[in-house]
Amino acid sequence: MREVVVDAPSDTFAATRDFWAGALLSHAREVEEFPEFTALPGAASLSWVGLQDIGTAEARFHVDIETDDVDAEVLRLTGLGAVKVADGRTWVVRRDPSGLLFDVVPHESPWFDERSHEVS
Amino acid sequence: MREVVVDAPSDTFAATRDFWAGALLSHAREVEEFPEFTALPGAASLSWVGLQDIGTAEARFHVDIETDDVDAEVLRLTGLGAVKVADGRTWVVRRDPSGLLFDVVPHESPWFDERSHEVS
Repeated sequence: MREVVVDAPSDTFAATRDFWAGALLSHAREVEEFPEFTALPGAASLSWVGLQDIGTAEARFHVDIETDDVDAEVLRLTGLGAVKVADGRTWVVRRDPSGLLFDVVPHESPWFDERSHEVS
Repeated sequence: MREVVVDAPSDTFAATRDFWAGALLSHAREVEEFPEFTALPGAASLSWVGLQDIGTAEARFHVDIETDDVDAEVLRLTGLGAVKVADGRTWVVRRDPSGLLFDVVPHESPWFDERSHEVS
């Protein structure tokens, strides 16, 4: 698990973005390819932290799980009880057994080799 | 920000705990002092990950922010827009401007010196 994403509705997005940027001593930076996403580079955090403008949906956190094999990891997580929400662009959206959202994403973080665990 | 906590209702708690333990290749361990909490030691994650049984409330994630001065950090976060929920035991519960829950907790993680940022 590499990232926590703060999913905030449009009407409180700016206040929420500024809050987390200040709280974690970062500076918010829009992600060019995906204008709904905002990064918090170098945040005071063990995990990566980002924000997403989710329009009129209700505020929530979601988390990203990174893997070097998205298809295999999604199959494995489905076997553990993950429920399909959407297959999109480069990532896959699922719910855990309590209904919480998470994404499975291709590995990208510099700590992947150090902090991931091999699936046997 | 050091921890992501999966807050799951009692009726899906066991399935949710087993899902995240399997997903992050850990083994769930109850926290002795606080029986509603379950830790996932050594999880495949950049941040710490834990679970909390929240009874009949709705599933959600919350995050923990750790600091070497809880009172000062809570004051600072209040100035940034945090809203009071509860002051309890050793931690403090607040909401961000979009309504999301987070705790402010005393520092404990071994990465605190390396990954925290000094507030000027």
